[in-house]
Amino acid sequence: MRLFGSHAPCRNVIISEPYSQLRLRLDRFAQESPKRLADALEYSLLAPGKRLRPVLCLLACETLGANLEQALGNACALEMIHCYSLIHDDLPAMDDDDLRRGRPTCHRQFDEATAILAGDALQPMAFESILGGRLEPPALVESCQVLAWAAGIRGMVGGQMDDLLEENRSQMQCDEPNGIEEPPEKRLDSIHRRKTGAMIEASVILGAIAANATPECRTALAKYGRGIGIAFQIVDDLLDVESTREKTGKATGKDAARGKLTFPGVYGITESRQMANRWVAESLAALEPFNHQAEGLRQIAKYILERHS
Amino acid sequence: MRLFGSHAPCRNVIISEPYSQLRLRLDRFAQESPKRLADALEYSLLAPGKRLRPVLCLLACETLGANLEQALGNACALEMIHCYSLIHDDLPAMDDDDLRRGRPTCHRQFDEATAILAGDALQPMAFESILGGRLEPPALVESCQVLAWAAGIRGMVGGQMDDLLEENRSQMQCDEPNGIEEPPEKRLDSIHRRKTGAMIEASVILGAIAANATPECRTALAKYGRGIGIAFQIVDDLLDVESTREKTGKATGKDAARGKLTFPGVYGITESRQMANRWVAESLAALEPFNHQAEGLRQIAKYILERHS
Repeated sequence: MRLFGSHAPCRNVIISEPYSQLRLRLDRFAQESPKRLADALEYSLLAPGKRLRPVLCLLACETLGANLEQALGNACALEMIHCYSLIHDDLPAMDDDDLRRGRPTCHRQFDEATAILAGDALQPMAFESILGGRLEPPALVESCQVLAWAAGIRGMVGGQMDDLLEENRSQMQCDEPNGIEEPPEKRLDSIHRRKTGAMIEASVILGAIAANATPECRTALAKYGRGIGIAFQIVDDLLDVESTREKTGKATGKDAARGKLTFPGVYGITESRQMANRWVAESLAALEPFNHQAEGLRQIAKYILERHS
Repeated sequence: MRLFGSHAPCRNVIISEPYSQLRLRLDRFAQESPKRLADALEYSLLAPGKRLRPVLCLLACETLGANLEQALGNACALEMIHCYSLIHDDLPAMDDDDLRRGRPTCHRQFDEATAILAGDALQPMAFESILGGRLEPPALVESCQVLAWAAGIRGMVGGQMDDLLEENRSQMQCDEPNGIEEPPEKRLDSIHRRKTGAMIEASVILGAIAANATPECRTALAKYGRGIGIAFQIVDDLLDVESTREKTGKATGKDAARGKLTFPGVYGITESRQMANRWVAESLAALEPFNHQAEGLRQIAKYILERHS
């Protein structure tokens, strides 16, 4: 399923640009890299994929009427962080997945050490991508701060740790420090706001910073990002229950087997679907001030609800 | 062995400051972190250690007569990157070490997934530490660029990959792309300039940036950093041959068993020791323009030659 319908040829640049920009940056780094590491990075970073985060970043920039070139450094940084997180999540000690985007995972294609180092290399590369962009120093600093927040302990990594703790509540000593356990609805919300939500929210914020957005515009776009971030995770959980490996390009039905805390597990399939619809409606409402300029972001919101992989 | 002799009480601030500054930053992050992740970070980041990199950063700032407070964000960032690299290097898929600084390694004390995530969390935390510092935006941008270079594919991670490839030349397909193999002296130099050298050189550069150094001062300090960086690695290799686990707090004699490319392995013990002396002499020569203000950096250079752990 394509990110945009065939009636939106103007979107082609936004879809193709992240790939060619990532290749450009990778080629520059690869010249000074051990060949095996460069191969692993190319294999993972340039794998077929939607590149949702850079596309969101560029669309946020477009929505504000700014030149897309200003946002390219930020856009690539988002994909680099996302890619590292996939490589490390797939490792045997983490989710132990053999398949990603329909191909062997990085550690299966290469080896575990190479996969760990490829993930490790992508984090500073992401910051270099921002810092090598065309923004003024204050905007560079702010972009790095947002990325560090979203990728770090209060964002993606913290959410990933909580997700793992849920799977292994008995093995790891994960008692709440105050002895009171949060209800599953609250834990689920907290995990996914951070694990997936933070980076998706950061994607539109990094586009807004690149476009030198007013505080009001930035707040509206952040609200849009938060809504589609949660909807994205709900649909991800639903796909794991309802879809097949052939459609998604990765193993399905694994969440339940692992005892993961998921939206269908906590709320049931029908209610989860309705929740995703409500979050997307909130996201769309946040875009109202931008009129037709936010058409690209609106299409992404609808895509998130309807995607099959 | 102490970093400075007992005749240097003025150095106490520089030695104790990194610990208390790291604790401060960690406490701030820990409030929003899953408890197990916060525990793993505290266990690793606040472990007993020399904190050579932050000390170098602060001493470079002191050498230039600037306020040490300006360099604290940069100093902590260096230790965070160093700490993440130790956690990941110790993993079973990498060096598979059980002991670090005389205590169980992070993945032995906690578990592999927690150790991977703790390392992953320290990278954005390092950038946040710089960005939360007291420098102006252009200096923040430059500091982040230097750290990203030193930590990335052209620095530490690239060197680590090359080091692993040396160990596993037969298993991994690591043929040179042009079919010509570099001589071991050149490969050794390239590995360690990047694996250890880049971060040590970056340590003094980050101190110089915080002190708003002139280009000449910065070049001189970078030369000092390059010299002690290589000397540090040579002595590290010598300690692995000559010392014991009791003295170093980690397993010794493992380099030879693994077939690592080391200085004593390539040059022999006597020549390696002389090389370390020569590099330190070059570092000391680079400090001449700073007169007595570089006393702290001189003591570190001597410490590097004489250290037993």
